[in-house]
Amino acid sequence: MAKLITPRSEDYARWYTDVVTQSRMADYSPVKGCMVIRPHGYALWENMQRVLDRMFKDTGHQNAYFPLFIPKSFLAKEARHVEGFAKECAIVTHTRLRASGSGDDAKLVVDPASALEEELIIRPTSETIIYSMFAKWVQSYRDLPLLINQWANVVRWEMRTRLFLRTTEFLWQEGHTAHATSEEAEEEARRMLDVYATFAEEYMAVPVLRGRKTEKEKFAGAERTYCIEALMQDGRALQAGTSHHLGQNFAKAFDLKFQTESGDWRFAYNTSWGVSTRLVGAIVMAHGDDQGLVLPPRLAPVQVVVVPIWKGTDPVERILAAAEGVEGALKRAGVAAKLDARDNLSPGFKFNEWEMLGVPLRIEIGPKDLEKGSVCCVKRTNRAKSFVPTGDVPTAVPALLEEIQRELLEAARARRDASTFAVDGYDEMKAKLEGPGGFLLAHWCGDGACETAIHEETKATIRVITFDGASETGRCVRCGRPSERRVHFAKAY
Amino acid sequence: MAKLITPRSEDYARWYTDVVTQSRMADYSPVKGCMVIRPHGYALWENMQRVLDRMFKDTGHQNAYFPLFIPKSFLAKEARHVEGFAKECAIVTHTRLRASGSGDDAKLVVDPASALEEELIIRPTSETIIYSMFAKWVQSYRDLPLLINQWANVVRWEMRTRLFLRTTEFLWQEGHTAHATSEEAEEEARRMLDVYATFAEEYMAVPVLRGRKTEKEKFAGAERTYCIEALMQDGRALQAGTSHHLGQNFAKAFDLKFQTESGDWRFAYNTSWGVSTRLVGAIVMAHGDDQGLVLPPRLAPVQVVVVPIWKGTDPVERILAAAEGVEGALKRAGVAAKLDARDNLSPGFKFNEWEMLGVPLRIEIGPKDLEKGSVCCVKRTNRAKSFVPTGDVPTAVPALLEEIQRELLEAARARRDASTFAVDGYDEMKAKLEGPGGFLLAHWCGDGACETAIHEETKATIRVITFDGASETGRCVRCGRPSERRVHFAKAY
Repeated sequence: MAKLITPRSEDYARWYTDVVTQSRMADYSPVKGCMVIRPHGYALWENMQRVLDRMFKDTGHQNAYFPLFIPKSFLAKEARHVEGFAKECAIVTHTRLRASGSGDDAKLVVDPASALEEELIIRPTSETIIYSMFAKWVQSYRDLPLLINQWANVVRWEMRTRLFLRTTEFLWQEGHTAHATSEEAEEEARRMLDVYATFAEEYMAVPVLRGRKTEKEKFAGAERTYCIEALMQDGRALQAGTSHHLGQNFAKAFDLKFQTESGDWRFAYNTSWGVSTRLVGAIVMAHGDDQGLVLPPRLAPVQVVVVPIWKGTDPVERILAAAEGVEGALKRAGVAAKLDARDNLSPGFKFNEWEMLGVPLRIEIGPKDLEKGSVCCVKRTNRAKSFVPTGDVPTAVPALLEEIQRELLEAARARRDASTFAVDGYDEMKAKLEGPGGFLLAHWCGDGACETAIHEETKATIRVITFDGASETGRCVRCGRPSERRVHFAKAY
Repeated sequence: MAKLITPRSEDYARWYTDVVTQSRMADYSPVKGCMVIRPHGYALWENMQRVLDRMFKDTGHQNAYFPLFIPKSFLAKEARHVEGFAKECAIVTHTRLRASGSGDDAKLVVDPASALEEELIIRPTSETIIYSMFAKWVQSYRDLPLLINQWANVVRWEMRTRLFLRTTEFLWQEGHTAHATSEEAEEEARRMLDVYATFAEEYMAVPVLRGRKTEKEKFAGAERTYCIEALMQDGRALQAGTSHHLGQNFAKAFDLKFQTESGDWRFAYNTSWGVSTRLVGAIVMAHGDDQGLVLPPRLAPVQVVVVPIWKGTDPVERILAAAEGVEGALKRAGVAAKLDARDNLSPGFKFNEWEMLGVPLRIEIGPKDLEKGSVCCVKRTNRAKSFVPTGDVPTAVPALLEEIQRELLEAARARRDASTFAVDGYDEMKAKLEGPGGFLLAHWCGDGACETAIHEETKATIRVITFDGASETGRCVRCGRPSERRVHFAKAY
């Protein structure tokens, strides 16, 4: 904890890396592009998993597990899919190492005799392997819908990586479903996007836009891709979750057919949807400040830290007993509380450390608090203090945590709204993008070539065509051709 | 559900595969040696994970996540470790596919220009990558003990695979810890073995022997390997969990040092310990019968199925309402209950199906039960019936489930004990191994050469040198040299 965090105003990217590493959420590994998720980061991910898993099960999904390996020929079966993933993947070609040379010169080399007949790809996503299994399991309309989710690691050979946001290997969940009709698949894809939006807003306290991606930005192999998009403090967008209506593309590639009630055979309709450990990065970037992490109470592994304060002739034993009592009362009330009774560290040092770790609420108990029969509650967000009678702790503290949760979402929404600009001219748009960034609401002609040109000229992409965007006639921000609505442009992570 | 299960007496291996596939716990995948864990099998694994994870956290461990990839050079750093794993591993050598040829003749080939500078091994276990990180994180004795667990997939390129019991990829947890002294590491290794034994007996209802492995059978890189060993219904042993005292072998290979209180630098002591999805196979083989799975109530995803029964002029509505009432009362009492109200299937069909799926208790509600104000409870194990007044269901059913849990453990223990034989002659031992199998308690001289010869001549291995084995002078079952105690031999999965 000795090192300082680079202020956001100085270098936002450095600030992010400092916060993630110094709060011990993650660390760089010896494998290029791969990170280690340390206990403080993993505990947050576990809490996110627990909530999401419950939401998936409540919407009728069951978990299963499919192989890490995808046969090369499987990847090739869906034309656009292979284009999307073939250029950056990890390929297993051999299965044995052997010693070469002897003594001190001995080296471990790949045994050429162990070459696989068909190479295996480490899954970058599992559509191909999963729908090949669905084809075995589905025969009749009675077997539909089939609603499966998988928690897994996936690998995409990324060139430029960043802790949590973009790593070669990452953890995620991928939902995969099969339906009898396009309408049902559409409903499912939209339902799961709503689940993601609810999770982002109600648990992560990150406001998101909901809508669909353009043809250019959609998932390789999908008919339509829906997404939720968030805005980070530096004015860049972050795609926080996607849900795809796959149509019959994979069903046709893997012969996933079912017999209808009237006896004829039809291809099924699929959806897939996923969120990943990049959401941990989103939480860091959405709420963190120059003191470190700020975690939303509903997901924080430690929600409240209790710090006893004493010096000189203070009644240490009684202060510690009161602090233990408060910790116990909070735990019984279902609050993840932790007592920090270390006696070799000053209160100030402890305050800094727990602020760095993002604990939403600190409770201080000193001799004066003891006298008054109350405790001092300090919010991580703004250090606002409130004094709570000790007996009220089990009800007042959960209420304070909910208050913090609401305030975080409101603050993030206010920041997002303050960074959303309607722009009409291309120069205006470029100036914004070179300056503060943010979501730029601009007219677009609908032409992919124009979209590509804007990307090349400004680095901004169309993040989302929102569901609730108003009709408004106008002219494309770049080419001037007519447009019927604005879309959200931004530079993105 | 239409196919029959091969009886155990006819072909135990076929019976096992029939039960696993027909109960839809798992299926073969298109990738050689890899399986798909289907929802019914995965839900059981999730329950096992939940209990184990709680036990790990209660003993002070935290979860983290380390990379899937191990640099080739890392594997080579611990000499015995590489010997143990180099011959059957998945090796990533390239990172890009490209099209070769054009049109209909186009093929997807590995791009030779994408060869990695250093090949990566898919983790067969994570000692090397984890201790390389520990070396970064540990500086002082104050950083110890470091108690980490990881839930992950691992890959070992097995030639002969079997659903759950031995697959190329499998799911597991691996605990990795670092300690200041050998004594503390020893205590940790033994503590976690006890956790595994408690889990096996109290949750899986599988009795286990606890002890250590011989030098020949220990983990590649360990000083000492402890294990729990179970006996399956066909008289073969199954290693159900291992815990290793790694000494300073990996600490030296990865420079994992700490500064003591007095200021000098020492290598840390490590332990590692793991259990895997093979435990799902152990549950199948320990309790299953010719009707299918038998799941222990404390781990069963569905603990109770409620089947309403009606025909002809019976008051269907009232029977269904009563069944719904019972399901609701059970759920409120914390029981995983499921109502099977499908009206296109006969009660007999439903009974068979839920028996196949291993649900521990069936509750039948028909017109007579309605009249009497009671329900009929049928145990999966022996079809024993008991009638419970409807109002007593919330207390009587959990008690019945606990009774079943106890009976399963007792029955498995009785089978194990009845299949444990003291043998003194080599011919007697061979005859047992060719016949019923079981644990054979025999004297052994302690010589690895003799152990190897016995393995080659009989296919049996020394499964465990139990902690509680009695001292007894005797002569080695094969060579006649003196021995001070008996050890457990068996053929094993």
